[in-house]
Amino acid sequence: MNKNQMSRLQQSCLEKGPLCVGLDTDTSYLPPEVLKQFDSPCDAVLAYNTALIDACEPYAACFKVQIAYYEAMGLKGLEVYSKTLKLLHQKNIPVISDVKRGDIADTAAAYARAHFSGDFETDIITVNPYMGFDTLVPFTNFCHAKNTEQAQKTGVSEKGMFVLLRTSNPGMTDIEKQPLAQGGIVLDHVGKELLRLADTFAKEYPQEGSYPCSPIGAVVGCTEESDARTLRDAYPNIFFLIPGYGAQGGAARIAATLLDKAGGTVNSSRGILTAWKKAESLKDKRESNKLTLQDIVESAAAAAKAAKEDLLKAKSSL
Amino acid sequence: MNKNQMSRLQQSCLEKGPLCVGLDTDTSYLPPEVLKQFDSPCDAVLAYNTALIDACEPYAACFKVQIAYYEAMGLKGLEVYSKTLKLLHQKNIPVISDVKRGDIADTAAAYARAHFSGDFETDIITVNPYMGFDTLVPFTNFCHAKNTEQAQKTGVSEKGMFVLLRTSNPGMTDIEKQPLAQGGIVLDHVGKELLRLADTFAKEYPQEGSYPCSPIGAVVGCTEESDARTLRDAYPNIFFLIPGYGAQGGAARIAATLLDKAGGTVNSSRGILTAWKKAESLKDKRESNKLTLQDIVESAAAAAKAAKEDLLKAKSSL
Repeated sequence: MNKNQMSRLQQSCLEKGPLCVGLDTDTSYLPPEVLKQFDSPCDAVLAYNTALIDACEPYAACFKVQIAYYEAMGLKGLEVYSKTLKLLHQKNIPVISDVKRGDIADTAAAYARAHFSGDFETDIITVNPYMGFDTLVPFTNFCHAKNTEQAQKTGVSEKGMFVLLRTSNPGMTDIEKQPLAQGGIVLDHVGKELLRLADTFAKEYPQEGSYPCSPIGAVVGCTEESDARTLRDAYPNIFFLIPGYGAQGGAARIAATLLDKAGGTVNSSRGILTAWKKAESLKDKRESNKLTLQDIVESAAAAAKAAKEDLLKAKSSL
Repeated sequence: MNKNQMSRLQQSCLEKGPLCVGLDTDTSYLPPEVLKQFDSPCDAVLAYNTALIDACEPYAACFKVQIAYYEAMGLKGLEVYSKTLKLLHQKNIPVISDVKRGDIADTAAAYARAHFSGDFETDIITVNPYMGFDTLVPFTNFCHAKNTEQAQKTGVSEKGMFVLLRTSNPGMTDIEKQPLAQGGIVLDHVGKELLRLADTFAKEYPQEGSYPCSPIGAVVGCTEESDARTLRDAYPNIFFLIPGYGAQGGAARIAATLLDKAGGTVNSSRGILTAWKKAESLKDKRESNKLTLQDIVESAAAAAKAAKEDLLKAKSSL
């Protein structure tokens, strides 16, 4: 049996519901009165992440860390990124690093080492397939049995990855949905490669259950119902990372369609991280600039709980 | 007149020839006897980069730093990356950061801040357009006049970017060259957007000269003569970043085709960084494990000089 990180995440979703809490922690997501309590914005982000992980853990199958926000804070930001990953590993919570890397040959191999070992070691990454399917190989190599330090802690050695399939931005029509001369659209062509990889892994590591999943998942945004139905049916054994829910406008009903069959994990970042900006109970504190870290963490946890319930309800009413 | 970083690079190529020296400095590119003279592999890479920049500068229009190799060394690796960029800025040498980032909305904006300001501030980056043309906007925003610290040093405030168009790996046939139902191939569709952006910038910042270039260039590999001719003719005002020469097998003749019209810069990384592995003059030292940093830097500089001459000769014999 293949105990890859994707199966581990699938299992976590069965146990804890489909919510993925996105730690896209931009400093603008913290009120000034909280920021100024720390020596630096980086210290504030680390404190917020630490408290968020504790408070949201009961409602989250996994966390997703978006590296762009940490990269934007420079070297110290990437230190916070590394510490956040280590915190999640220590707590044995599945973690997705949203890095969307993609490059060729030796360079792709360097990115695979960067994110599947060392300071930035994670469980699952997101990958951009644009330059061609040969560029996925150095990453899929880590989805076979590997003996890493993180493997010893979690008991799961094989890494996982989500390949960009149908993203949640308006511009996804530009390339991903371009009709091809051979029929279908560009993303169908990427999907075919994901099915081929799923077959390869299924043969190498036979699994039980009705929808055992490939270590190679797909990013599928929940912004259009018809796409959701089509893609869920086309890729029954592919586990999905589902952005676009909440702040990006995607409805729980569309997400629920994508949660069918092998299932998936539904990301919410801003809707949770910035819940304090809308919370009725914090109105007075907000207006008098008296918010505390505790306040904003509590409203984030309440938003995570509500998101989990919203998704489970939509799923059960399908 | 628009003094963007792409025009600055184009000017540097006119003055110093088309060679771009790629600092894809993997630790395996250093012999063990040199590595062990340093406290850590990161220290060795920084020393190698520092000496390489000095030795290769006479032959290089610019340097390209491939972030993947530094990311693979973790936090300390990214410190070396940042220091390497600062060194190049201090010497007023144009620098391309090969980061191939790409993401949507606020996340793309975070990547743009990450690489156009702060610890990792560079002159020009590479960008992956797969998720759609809306994802380019946060990056192109920095190609308009901006007042950054680096701008004050170089006198050039507007950043530049190279969008992936036709890469040099075999897998580029998978998506980039897929025939579209509307005619043409996927990369033609990306190219149309580059032409649209070039028009926008040309109107906003009129320039003189026969081939004034857009701040938005394109990555075009020099691995196929017919593609080189077609792409050079289709995009006369787009400046090219040209990988695939040297170690990747691309010939100077194909590169020369791409250097026509607005021109471009031809990257060589491994062919220069690992020239010591083949240098006849170093045979004895290599076999007795007595290579010094000075030896490998001198052979790199000789390889850079030879590459520059090879490219200029091919260009003049077109």
